[in-house]
Amino acid sequence: MNHDLVSTLFRELRKMPICDPHTHVPWDKPCAIHLGELLGYHYYTELANSSRGAPVPLPDDPGERIEYVWPHLPKLRGTVQFDWMMGISEVFFEIPRGDWWSKPKSEIVARAQKAIQDGSYIQRVFERSQVTKVYLTNQFDEDLSRLKDGRLVPCLRTDDLVFNASTAKMVERLDKCTKLKAGKSIKNFDLALSKVFDRFASWKMGYAAVGAPPSFAVEDVKDKTAAKLLARLAEGKKFDQEQKFAWASFAIGRIAKQCARVNVPFCLMVGADRGAYAQGVPAGQDLFSCDGNLRGYDNLLNTHPDVRFPMMVVSDTAGLELVTEGWIRHNVYPFSHWWYANNPEDIRRELRRRLDVLPRNKFIGFHSDGYSLEFVLPKFNTFRLQLAIVLAEKIEESRIGGVETLEPLRVEDALALAERILLKNPEEILGGK
Amino acid sequence: MNHDLVSTLFRELRKMPICDPHTHVPWDKPCAIHLGELLGYHYYTELANSSRGAPVPLPDDPGERIEYVWPHLPKLRGTVQFDWMMGISEVFFEIPRGDWWSKPKSEIVARAQKAIQDGSYIQRVFERSQVTKVYLTNQFDEDLSRLKDGRLVPCLRTDDLVFNASTAKMVERLDKCTKLKAGKSIKNFDLALSKVFDRFASWKMGYAAVGAPPSFAVEDVKDKTAAKLLARLAEGKKFDQEQKFAWASFAIGRIAKQCARVNVPFCLMVGADRGAYAQGVPAGQDLFSCDGNLRGYDNLLNTHPDVRFPMMVVSDTAGLELVTEGWIRHNVYPFSHWWYANNPEDIRRELRRRLDVLPRNKFIGFHSDGYSLEFVLPKFNTFRLQLAIVLAEKIEESRIGGVETLEPLRVEDALALAERILLKNPEEILGGK
Amino acid sequence: MNHDLVSTLFRELRKMPICDPHTHVPWDKPCAIHLGELLGYHYYTELANSSRGAPVPLPDDPGERIEYVWPHLPKLRGTVQFDWMMGISEVFFEIPRGDWWSKPKSEIVARAQKAIQDGSYIQRVFERSQVTKVYLTNQFDEDLSRLKDGRLVPCLRTDDLVFNASTAKMVERLDKCTKLKAGKSIKNFDLALSKVFDRFASWKMGYAAVGAPPSFAVEDVKDKTAAKLLARLAEGKKFDQEQKFAWASFAIGRIAKQCARVNVPFCLMVGADRGAYAQGVPAGQDLFSCDGNLRGYDNLLNTHPDVRFPMMVVSDTAGLELVTEGWIRHNVYPFSHWWYANNPEDIRRELRRRLDVLPRNKFIGFHSDGYSLEFVLPKFNTFRLQLAIVLAEKIEESRIGGVETLEPLRVEDALALAERILLKNPEEILGGK
Repeated sequence: MNHDLVSTLFRELRKMPICDPHTHVPWDKPCAIHLGELLGYHYYTELANSSRGAPVPLPDDPGERIEYVWPHLPKLRGTVQFDWMMGISEVFFEIPRGDWWSKPKSEIVARAQKAIQDGSYIQRVFERSQVTKVYLTNQFDEDLSRLKDGRLVPCLRTDDLVFNASTAKMVERLDKCTKLKAGKSIKNFDLALSKVFDRFASWKMGYAAVGAPPSFAVEDVKDKTAAKLLARLAEGKKFDQEQKFAWASFAIGRIAKQCARVNVPFCLMVGADRGAYAQGVPAGQDLFSCDGNLRGYDNLLNTHPDVRFPMMVVSDTAGLELVTEGWIRHNVYPFSHWWYANNPEDIRRELRRRLDVLPRNKFIGFHSDGYSLEFVLPKFNTFRLQLAIVLAEKIEESRIGGVETLEPLRVEDALALAERILLKNPEEILGGK
Repeated sequence: MNHDLVSTLFRELRKMPICDPHTHVPWDKPCAIHLGELLGYHYYTELANSSRGAPVPLPDDPGERIEYVWPHLPKLRGTVQFDWMMGISEVFFEIPRGDWWSKPKSEIVARAQKAIQDGSYIQRVFERSQVTKVYLTNQFDEDLSRLKDGRLVPCLRTDDLVFNASTAKMVERLDKCTKLKAGKSIKNFDLALSKVFDRFASWKMGYAAVGAPPSFAVEDVKDKTAAKLLARLAEGKKFDQEQKFAWASFAIGRIAKQCARVNVPFCLMVGADRGAYAQGVPAGQDLFSCDGNLRGYDNLLNTHPDVRFPMMVVSDTAGLELVTEGWIRHNVYPFSHWWYANNPEDIRRELRRRLDVLPRNKFIGFHSDGYSLEFVLPKFNTFRLQLAIVLAEKIEESRIGGVETLEPLRVEDALALAERILLKNPEEILGGK
Repeated sequence: MNHDLVSTLFRELRKMPICDPHTHVPWDKPCAIHLGELLGYHYYTELANSSRGAPVPLPDDPGERIEYVWPHLPKLRGTVQFDWMMGISEVFFEIPRGDWWSKPKSEIVARAQKAIQDGSYIQRVFERSQVTKVYLTNQFDEDLSRLKDGRLVPCLRTDDLVFNASTAKMVERLDKCTKLKAGKSIKNFDLALSKVFDRFASWKMGYAAVGAPPSFAVEDVKDKTAAKLLARLAEGKKFDQEQKFAWASFAIGRIAKQCARVNVPFCLMVGADRGAYAQGVPAGQDLFSCDGNLRGYDNLLNTHPDVRFPMMVVSDTAGLELVTEGWIRHNVYPFSHWWYANNPEDIRRELRRRLDVLPRNKFIGFHSDGYSLEFVLPKFNTFRLQLAIVLAEKIEESRIGGVETLEPLRVEDALALAERILLKNPEEILGGK
């Protein structure tokens, strides 16, 4: 590793503002009000559950969640996940990370609470993070009319309209929020969807999004078949697996049409297999499958050439497939590094591939996926360090290759490329303006 | 990165002559006659199509292809693919890469055309590239009797006899070129195949080759079944998917027998899924599937122990599988880095694996896949730089490991290893002598 | 590569004692008595068979095995596999590796035999390797009552009770060793299993283990179905594929219950596809499939929360899946780097992932898989060098990242982490105390 070159790049990257194109930050409570909400983030509860070797149910109370996690922190020391917490501690609480091991728990909790409860806490988190924009995750029946902070961009998460339709009371909720008897006919369902999209468009939505299981294949579904499935939903009947996927295929196509109509991207989050681990803590029960491929989306992507599809994958194995989708398809945009694939090793590999073969306007650098604004900065810093390492490698290679082999890459060129993928591309590709 | 060590290795590697064991170079027109043929290479048209965000049909005229690609070049700047064009510009046109951004398009085109139209252009490309041998891609009914340049080695591409049999007028063309009524019976088909192989053998063929889709499995097909399929072909009827794969299984076995008879290798190119992207430019519509495995070839490889099978894969995920095929099987030879897997990140990983665990006579270093001779040198230089990086790492590790752990690797040993995989192995494994 | 930092780490790692948590070392003959047993290790016979380009059957006689391998050694020079042999030569035979290329074969064999036949040879191998513990592989009907060396830990390999039940005379052998008429009923089978586990427990067993093919899925099997399958086994009838996997599902569950009862882990070795290469030497006929996933174990892992499951995979593609199993599941422990995935490139990738995201008590560093004690040290040294490289990278990154981004990692912290995964974790996770 070229220490000086990586250090220079990392220092400059840390000066940049942050646009975070996908989070679960609540619009009405962007920061934690209790340390237990931060230590209760599933990245810590699942590692604590894993580390202890015997499953223990997770308590709800934030204070009890601290108790749940605390004894296992020494085993988590040095992990990427725990380093995010330490970044929060250093930057927002002004508690040096060393104190976590040398001071009593009560003192750490008290000092953290003092910082959190300070009146300027949220402002401090925004400012020290240099966050200019945060894309949110919102349900179709959420009312966002009171959201006035232009930095927070609503995004329509459509899982409850698609894969969860029969378990999430979709029709009932859609009726309630649109007054359009969505379950009566496909026509009514479309009208209700339009109303939902119009509302989100009026709130300057960033994009629609859906999470899909490994190797899901979008099939053509006839309106007649869809009508029967909608009738089942309206009657409150459950779907079997085949019905679930048929409805999902249908609904995804309808949502894509809405995205075209209101000119927003449709973000595909591919590969999480929910509920695989029976004894897991909430949000810590999901895995993926290394044989999950992306070919099941050919139909969707080919059928809607007028829709932009930012796409993220939870596996490492679909990484190069995703790169090639972005390489040849005009409407697929590889989107950041997600969840299990969001670790330094896998970030570096995908970054290098994307920087080497994709047009520079075809992929989005990074997102935090955070449930609380505090996580944005430390997660971006993890990424920035790996980006600095990859850019330094490319600079070094360009010095050896010479003009006959490689574009000469200077530090300022590398930083322009970083700005392009981290700031310009989300601005160009996503909505929310 | 050890700058000095990598630089030394790269400099020495660039001095070596090039044997390019797989290309699509036309034997009767090895170099371009118009810049639009080079900028019209699918690597540029597909990236231009991808970068623009909306599909536009590709024009045929070379001049119009320059127009198609030109506005998108700034977005392609710094990619591996565009660096190949810049290498051509620097070495064969003597146009510095910087001029592409500072001079008007008309000037660049004019200067490139001047170089291309110079009477010594083809000779210059051969000489500056130090190309000693180029393996070609030829159809079974091509007439190569006028090919007299010993540097160009004919290779029989058999896709139209195998997977494309029912769409490529196989029987009709085979009849025309062999006069043997190939569609009459399996016996006649075999006679026609023999005639094709005899012709190619008389032209000192390098190998037979076939491209196969992801997870294709070679099944045993009875002659009786094959005879029925041949009859369909003779009648000009189309195959359904099952018939297509049954015929492919049969035909691949028959071709393997011919390879044994005339003692040439049978090159397997595995994993491309044709026509996945509906709005793609020609040759820019293909993807792959990360779950494509190689186990469907067990039958073929076990049944023909007397045939050498050089094998390349388009995916990253089958990379280690391919290494292990070369590791234990006596008749499989991992062959270079292909297409989507031919990027620096994936080259380095596979190179390191192959150098670490394969007998040094069991794999072929690199091929350009170029459609025009100009691409050979810049593509080999991309590979050479990554090879220099991997060899430098191995040298550094051997210095640390000591004789108890690792073979001491000096620069000259590393270069001997490079020469082995780049020059000696194609010579030993492939035909064409 | 930071030469000084990697060298320091590697030097310190080599000073550590070795606990080898999985081998095939015979308890009554831990070292070779003939060089032909070492050169006859399948890693050399398969590479010799591969390198020669034409399959030749492997002789049984150790001397003839040397003849089989010897002419092909120059092609194997510089591979990881051959470096293990060279490590043995340097450390235990005191034959410099250079002599293998400059001296006649007869001299090398004679000098090796002299070292091997020295009365203190076994003790020397133990001492120079600093081996403190070696886990063995034992069949259910082996008698280990004469094993008195506390460094050698019996482990119950259960393949013959599970996947090989119908081909390995399981019932007959179980009857003979337990006198319990195991084939009479499921109850009797359970009693016989209990007797086997009680015997192994009395010998302080380390764990039970089973090897499973790619993408095997553990299904629920009713006792009634299992009873019918057991009756077939008792009658000496063969299983078809479906029966084989049904019995395997049943037997794996029963073995898991025994592991819970006697409190030992159940080690899962996932992904080898046996007998794929028809012309291969013994133990050199197996491959894997890159699409083999781990989701077929959800049922087993969820059903036995009270059993620890160390788990290894033969593929690279399931590597991140395995990491995520260890990440969220309380009872899965990623176990070392196995077979085809045990090469420097793949070791580094998995190590980095595990060190970055797993609790430090959740994975086991390395095992040799050796068939003879001599291989333990050189195989651990291959791993130690890659571990040194990965730890050095993490140290360098922590220096650049600073406390706001990364845990500061000093050399002594890195070595403590190494000791944790190489020595403490096997001690805590495995049995054998």
